[in-house]
Amino acid sequence: MLRLALSSIASLFLVPPLGYIPGLHSHCSLIPPIAKPEFDARQAALATALYNLNASAYITEPSANSQYYANFSSINWKLSERPLLLIIRPRLDARLNPGLPVVPFKDSQTRYIQWAEEANPYASALAGLGMSSDSEETLYVDNKIRKFIVDGLQQAGPKLRIASAPLEITSLRERKSPAELEILKCANEATVLAIRDVHLQLSAGLRESEVSIMLSSALGKAGLSNAGCLTLFGANAALPHGSGTDRVLGRDDFALFDCGGSLHGYVSDVTRTVALPDARLPNGHLHIWYAVKGAQAAALGAAKAGVLTRKPDEAARAFLQALGLKDYFTHRLGHGIGLEGHEQPYLRGGSNDVMLTGHTFSNEPGVYIENKVGVRIEDCFYVDDAGNPRYLTERVGGPSETPWAP
Amino acid sequence: MLRLALSSIASLFLVPPLGYIPGLHSHCSLIPPIAKPEFDARQAALATALYNLNASAYITEPSANSQYYANFSSINWKLSERPLLLIIRPRLDARLNPGLPVVPFKDSQTRYIQWAEEANPYASALAGLGMSSDSEETLYVDNKIRKFIVDGLQQAGPKLRIASAPLEITSLRERKSPAELEILKCANEATVLAIRDVHLQLSAGLRESEVSIMLSSALGKAGLSNAGCLTLFGANAALPHGSGTDRVLGRDDFALFDCGGSLHGYVSDVTRTVALPDARLPNGHLHIWYAVKGAQAAALGAAKAGVLTRKPDEAARAFLQALGLKDYFTHRLGHGIGLEGHEQPYLRGGSNDVMLTGHTFSNEPGVYIENKVGVRIEDCFYVDDAGNPRYLTERVGGPSETPWAP
Repeated sequence: MLRLALSSIASLFLVPPLGYIPGLHSHCSLIPPIAKPEFDARQAALATALYNLNASAYITEPSANSQYYANFSSINWKLSERPLLLIIRPRLDARLNPGLPVVPFKDSQTRYIQWAEEANPYASALAGLGMSSDSEETLYVDNKIRKFIVDGLQQAGPKLRIASAPLEITSLRERKSPAELEILKCANEATVLAIRDVHLQLSAGLRESEVSIMLSSALGKAGLSNAGCLTLFGANAALPHGSGTDRVLGRDDFALFDCGGSLHGYVSDVTRTVALPDARLPNGHLHIWYAVKGAQAAALGAAKAGVLTRKPDEAARAFLQALGLKDYFTHRLGHGIGLEGHEQPYLRGGSNDVMLTGHTFSNEPGVYIENKVGVRIEDCFYVDDAGNPRYLTERVGGPSETPWAP
Repeated sequence: MLRLALSSIASLFLVPPLGYIPGLHSHCSLIPPIAKPEFDARQAALATALYNLNASAYITEPSANSQYYANFSSINWKLSERPLLLIIRPRLDARLNPGLPVVPFKDSQTRYIQWAEEANPYASALAGLGMSSDSEETLYVDNKIRKFIVDGLQQAGPKLRIASAPLEITSLRERKSPAELEILKCANEATVLAIRDVHLQLSAGLRESEVSIMLSSALGKAGLSNAGCLTLFGANAALPHGSGTDRVLGRDDFALFDCGGSLHGYVSDVTRTVALPDARLPNGHLHIWYAVKGAQAAALGAAKAGVLTRKPDEAARAFLQALGLKDYFTHRLGHGIGLEGHEQPYLRGGSNDVMLTGHTFSNEPGVYIENKVGVRIEDCFYVDDAGNPRYLTERVGGPSETPWAP
């Protein structure tokens, strides 16, 4: 370890890095995280749902759900063999209304129940809930909870009914609040701005790994954490989730960037397929680019509150089918997005979920022809109060216009 | 992004970094990863266990178990909402012995079962196993599998019996092979060497964060990946799992380093509590250091194949009780270690597990007096073929002799 002693500095210059765009640096600095009253309201909504379902508690490990309800997640609280559980239960306050539930459950109380190493943590959890090994109540768990937690609870209370939380509970997190939408908008805007920043710096001869670093840096400057991009050039982009090579960018290549980063726990997801200013793209590849753009527009046109979430997927596929490209669109159209990069509901064939106001989705059709070309364009949208889809990135211009205007 | 063109270099000097110890750099470079025949043998042992349990398959997500059986883990295959499952089943080969099972199952076959986005992956998995929605067979799952995977399998086959793998299966990974022990020995040796390297560079005034970086660097140089140390000075070490401050090291402080890193997927775990060469430790703190060292020796003395794994924990506690320090030893004595940093069985009160040859454990007693001092000393040991405990670090001298000889 070297330590430098700087006893005096005559002058100091701060020089913007290459490709610096004023404003990129602090794009989201004014966007606040979720405030305490909103966490309280979330807990109250969950307590009400549990009460209506006649369930005694909801249990999750550190996860997107613990982030949603109690502002901690597995980023800070790594999963270990020692269970750390968030347990939320509706509480009837007999002092206020003897015999009547308080709805909404707005006066939350928090307790921390510790367990000794030699004790059974699941028995401690049930005791903390006022339950015994004979209790026959219903507990709902996060469906990503690890099986040994469920096993432990079931052994401590063999008569308990332990099940994955039903839609009445999981849907509480699906529909985004105004504060959540502001965070998601800014995260996605910052992602687009970072991609545009790097696009201006592209030149033939750069490697995928070099451009990937430039993108991570730009996303970080734009204020996002845990940020990065899948970065694929030319035929490498024909494998939707990446390849193992480190290809050099050529004038006849598209460059595909599938980027995401985190703001206050909420994640962005934007994909751009771009070309060099002096590109010499095969005409067929440009044709594919506009086909994908058309599919994206067709999908958005089929999105509306009340429709099945399979409909936008079907619309994108129908559009590509008319161009003879349907078989090259090999994945679902999109996914819900929020505290998780992929969350329910999904825009995919076979889904019977219903699109609702406040839902947020990626819209990411693609065409992949192995060993030749891959194009994907992705923007996330939300369903506004009038039931219409609106891109989260509309304040910075929304979707890509051409391969030269990401 | 700056790119430098170096057209000519007149001369080039490589200078060892400060504190360089010859040999640290490549300590484990000759230790091979687990070879294909050992993976085959593991799968055959699992197939035999499944056959004996009358179970049809074992299922795990990317995890330590998928690493153990098939050489891939969640480091490369991140968990997502799309299930990626390793399914291992015993296969009866009717061609060789009509009507008789082939035991051991040494001719493994591998199949990759893909599922389309709009299809049900769990139904695809059952179809791949030759099962239908009416099958009544038994499937054992990794007990860390996420609940929605179990839910999905159960919905696809309502009559299936799906349970966490029993001890007959989980114990297969507990007892380490000679190849595994060589990897674990080298990883733990490298960890001790890295700590000794950094200990020589310590001086009063360094911050916890600075020393933590020095340790990560030394562990990396020693050949370990994903390596780092919990680094706590003085009273901060009285909180066994850390504090939020960035304390400066003083001459009256102990420095506690709880370090680990990975070699071929296997992890090390070594804790040292050290002092500066010119330390002025309170006598009471030095007394505690030797008490913890005595407890560690007492615990090892109680370890032997055939004893309950609670016995070493009890021996350490009894030793500290005689010195009036028992109440300050606030955690279990140790844990199994291998592909996971903490794995079964555990050395803790209340455990009825039996210690067996090939088992590997941490032995890490500690004394924590809040706002004053914290001491923990940790070495990992294995139970040799004669049933005796031997430190994984014995080739580099084993446990710490004094706070100045880590």
